[in-house]
Amino acid sequence: MLTGVVPPVCTPLTPDLDVDVDSLLRLVDFQLAGGVDGLFILGSSSEVAFLPDGHRAVVIDAVLRHVAGQVPVLIGAIDMTTLRVLDHARRAVRAGCAGIVATAPFYTRTHPAEVELHLRRVAEQCEAPLYAYDLPVSVHTNLDHEMLLRLAAEGVLAGLKDSTGDDAALRDLLVARRDAGLTAFSVLTGSELTVDSALRMGADGVVPGLGNVDPHGYAALYRHARAGDWDQAAREQERLLRLMRIVRAAAPSRMGRGSSALGAFKTALRLRGVIRHAVTAPPQIPLDDAETDYVRRTLVAAGLL
Amino acid sequence: MLTGVVPPVCTPLTPDLDVDVDSLLRLVDFQLAGGVDGLFILGSSSEVAFLPDGHRAVVIDAVLRHVAGQVPVLIGAIDMTTLRVLDHARRAVRAGCAGIVATAPFYTRTHPAEVELHLRRVAEQCEAPLYAYDLPVSVHTNLDHEMLLRLAAEGVLAGLKDSTGDDAALRDLLVARRDAGLTAFSVLTGSELTVDSALRMGADGVVPGLGNVDPHGYAALYRHARAGDWDQAAREQERLLRLMRIVRAAAPSRMGRGSSALGAFKTALRLRGVIRHAVTAPPQIPLDDAETDYVRRTLVAAGLL
Amino acid sequence: MLTGVVPPVCTPLTPDLDVDVDSLLRLVDFQLAGGVDGLFILGSSSEVAFLPDGHRAVVIDAVLRHVAGQVPVLIGAIDMTTLRVLDHARRAVRAGCAGIVATAPFYTRTHPAEVELHLRRVAEQCEAPLYAYDLPVSVHTNLDHEMLLRLAAEGVLAGLKDSTGDDAALRDLLVARRDAGLTAFSVLTGSELTVDSALRMGADGVVPGLGNVDPHGYAALYRHARAGDWDQAAREQERLLRLMRIVRAAAPSRMGRGSSALGAFKTALRLRGVIRHAVTAPPQIPLDDAETDYVRRTLVAAGLL
Amino acid sequence: MLTGVVPPVCTPLTPDLDVDVDSLLRLVDFQLAGGVDGLFILGSSSEVAFLPDGHRAVVIDAVLRHVAGQVPVLIGAIDMTTLRVLDHARRAVRAGCAGIVATAPFYTRTHPAEVELHLRRVAEQCEAPLYAYDLPVSVHTNLDHEMLLRLAAEGVLAGLKDSTGDDAALRDLLVARRDAGLTAFSVLTGSELTVDSALRMGADGVVPGLGNVDPHGYAALYRHARAGDWDQAAREQERLLRLMRIVRAAAPSRMGRGSSALGAFKTALRLRGVIRHAVTAPPQIPLDDAETDYVRRTLVAAGLL
Repeated sequence: MLTGVVPPVCTPLTPDLDVDVDSLLRLVDFQLAGGVDGLFILGSSSEVAFLPDGHRAVVIDAVLRHVAGQVPVLIGAIDMTTLRVLDHARRAVRAGCAGIVATAPFYTRTHPAEVELHLRRVAEQCEAPLYAYDLPVSVHTNLDHEMLLRLAAEGVLAGLKDSTGDDAALRDLLVARRDAGLTAFSVLTGSELTVDSALRMGADGVVPGLGNVDPHGYAALYRHARAGDWDQAAREQERLLRLMRIVRAAAPSRMGRGSSALGAFKTALRLRGVIRHAVTAPPQIPLDDAETDYVRRTLVAAGLL
Repeated sequence: MLTGVVPPVCTPLTPDLDVDVDSLLRLVDFQLAGGVDGLFILGSSSEVAFLPDGHRAVVIDAVLRHVAGQVPVLIGAIDMTTLRVLDHARRAVRAGCAGIVATAPFYTRTHPAEVELHLRRVAEQCEAPLYAYDLPVSVHTNLDHEMLLRLAAEGVLAGLKDSTGDDAALRDLLVARRDAGLTAFSVLTGSELTVDSALRMGADGVVPGLGNVDPHGYAALYRHARAGDWDQAAREQERLLRLMRIVRAAAPSRMGRGSSALGAFKTALRLRGVIRHAVTAPPQIPLDDAETDYVRRTLVAAGLL
Repeated sequence: MLTGVVPPVCTPLTPDLDVDVDSLLRLVDFQLAGGVDGLFILGSSSEVAFLPDGHRAVVIDAVLRHVAGQVPVLIGAIDMTTLRVLDHARRAVRAGCAGIVATAPFYTRTHPAEVELHLRRVAEQCEAPLYAYDLPVSVHTNLDHEMLLRLAAEGVLAGLKDSTGDDAALRDLLVARRDAGLTAFSVLTGSELTVDSALRMGADGVVPGLGNVDPHGYAALYRHARAGDWDQAAREQERLLRLMRIVRAAAPSRMGRGSSALGAFKTALRLRGVIRHAVTAPPQIPLDDAETDYVRRTLVAAGLL
Repeated sequence: MLTGVVPPVCTPLTPDLDVDVDSLLRLVDFQLAGGVDGLFILGSSSEVAFLPDGHRAVVIDAVLRHVAGQVPVLIGAIDMTTLRVLDHARRAVRAGCAGIVATAPFYTRTHPAEVELHLRRVAEQCEAPLYAYDLPVSVHTNLDHEMLLRLAAEGVLAGLKDSTGDDAALRDLLVARRDAGLTAFSVLTGSELTVDSALRMGADGVVPGLGNVDPHGYAALYRHARAGDWDQAAREQERLLRLMRIVRAAAPSRMGRGSSALGAFKTALRLRGVIRHAVTAPPQIPLDDAETDYVRRTLVAAGLL
């Protein structure tokens, strides 16, 4: 069962908007050196919604070849509906991923019964463990927990990445999972700022966007938690919380929160010498000099520069 | 400038979920015989969100070859963000479309300035007129009207498909367009039930999903309106309004409104002998016998069976 | 049955935030002189959500005494839930109103069956015709049309003020009302910019916030429509549409759209000499000099100054 | 500074929908015997949105006289906008409350600058500590954290009840509060299921709706947390989490989530012998026999019957 720190790996780009494979592999090495337990490529923090299929293929090939089984690699099959998701999923399976990650349908207005059909169909037709991705901020629906537990019990789902930010609902799910004796359903939180809480509640791991910038921090947090040293875990979490403020580099009047966050992650990785360019995909607005400087100062305060 | 009735053409599928090209071409002929002024393929009513890229390519090739310039064909380049939209747009341009239709980015949380950048970038990099598609029910943002007028004035946009259902805002836009003297910016409403009102307000045409089922009706409505016979136009509109109730074939407790509507359109087309199967793409739930019978009775009441 | 132009009367305030009764009665006279068919006090444009119960009582007493039966006066009983609405409704009935206007519950998360219970209970316990007020922008739920028609057929509801802005749904309701032979259920649109369209579709009248500023305009529009002179009606509607732009006096970065609109209405009434102060209730931000000047110039352009 | 367990006290009603004062005082005694640190009357769990002003006055008088200073009593001044909130607040201050609780404006569309003005005005004009209540599910806006910290630093706000369910944002606020050295700004969570996590993050207490049913449980949880026995705290929290499932007594197809939750709290209190009737205010739908039995069985499983 998947556990630990599984960062959603950023996708470095060149100024011409190609995948910067050198930077991507350096970033992968940086994550592995940081002590992560797995990698999630083509997730939201990877700008998957911005990447054409050609770019996605380059990322999959480069990362899977490079990792070569050192850690499990999950691949996001992020698209609007079943047949499109299956196209992505099949490519991912052929490349040898450890699991597929899929959301509920979006763009369309989908009934809960159709969300369930969607997940069942994807699981049936692709030969890899399927992780459901609950991300209402992008998808505009929530995954029903009874449905998740039903699919987990039937072996349809191997796990969940919970990015709802609703820790009360997460805890209810974790207790229900325990009560149902589901030992093969991995629950990972996507909330970077309450990882210690989620682990105490019984979560198996975390998929932290911020882990791109500081994998060592998340690995340390996870280690402290597993060792039962919750005070150390909380201190590390608070250090990371302060680091997380890089995502507010740009004012909401200037760009979307997504651009600000992804721009800040990439800027931080560039400043730390891991990737070559902080370029984000269009139509995202890039950070300007003052915003970049804010990221730099925040990194210094967090002890990372 | 694009005017008149431009239905968003359904995509008939086989039971194996391939494009049913024979049925698609019969549907196109049915539309042309009905007197439509253009066709819009790969829009929401075409289940574009459900079609893999391979299916999209089949639809484009089949329809453009078959229509062969009889009427202008718009093609939806519906995807999450700029680079992905551009991939679709380039294929559409190569096939010889009369225009590209694109929404604001979705899945991502996008700032208005980024929506504008997105439309500018798509227009710059694809050699076909660009129509903006305002569809907040799918995209979860609205297109700003000042931005639309600015892009129209600069020649970035050739037109708008307005599917907001907000006729007051539509009218404000139409008055502003007139005041600005924008004679090359086509405004089409996507609201099937207020076409006569929209035309009176100055709209140039309509993109009616229901036009799949009754193109003759929408062509007659448009003709009456253009002839200034608004009473006849209203009567035709009311007949179509009653026909539109087929979209409520299924209860909201059983499936999404999208499934019910698309299932009803395809069921009606099958019952009218235009397409072979009423199959919709997964994960949409198909209409059952009682729901199909409701569609049949509604068609009979509308004089179409 | 209630028909025609029924403006939601603004509530003029003194700088000390009391009701400015003199100004209120001048505004009422201005409306009557303008040719309106009824008055709606304590609606959203009356700042009902901002008025303490004491202010509401002053408004009711002053207006009902002054109007003295010249036209029907509807009174908004706007509050969160049933018992609170009933308290307001009873005061309104005692004062002799021609009808009560109530929304669905808000603040609470209410099921459609509970919305229906709410309207039934209010109607049962208050001896005045009840008008349902569909205002999703404030209430965050929509009134179900089947429920409305059921309550209309049973005599529970005397009418509807539709402020959804969804003219397609309005038309569907109007056709269903006709098909059901409901002759005692008045449907009024709250959409100030599509009044001619709504009347053509069969609506009985309009409740225009902008009618505060130009009652003569709305009365003329209604008269043209009833006379079947739709071209004149449309011209008048377009003049009013341009006048409506006063609601955009303030930038969305500076204040809410409500403050901007209510501030503009009151500023326009002050500039036209109808009320003494443009004061709006806290926490609304008042228009500044530049915004006031924008209102003035718009009034001049509309021929009202 | 306010700390500990401060339950939002339910308002028992008679079958005639009057306040059942005897039951209310028994409930208060039950809370005090359970070891709570304060009481919050006229909050959302008190059905404040359903109570006419007369009922609110009865509750205030009865509870404040009965408690007579044994613990601090906060009073909700829940209404749409500033002047209406001030009316409630003044009555509460006259009665001798320990603090007023107010939300952002609702029903109106309010700009952040107006939310700030609202809180400032309420604080200025009422002589009691003001607690901001962040409840987006009812109010449809979030309180901005920078604004909260600014008002806390200026002494405008005495505290916050955070019912957003967003523990990551709560933690960010708690860290910022500590960094700013704000020692007189009390932060209480309204999330009943993550109390141990919130306390570990630095929250000062909890306002648990479920505390009505099991005050002893929340008092024990708080005591364990303060003693640093986090394992015991977590076990108690998990017991309470299972108890919380009473709020799902009714299916979402039958009534709103609010009715189900408030009906379950009152049913549980009746079954435990604390209050006489499980009556909730209209238009809420009451629990039926099967739903009541579900509550009973859940209470038994939690060791409370």
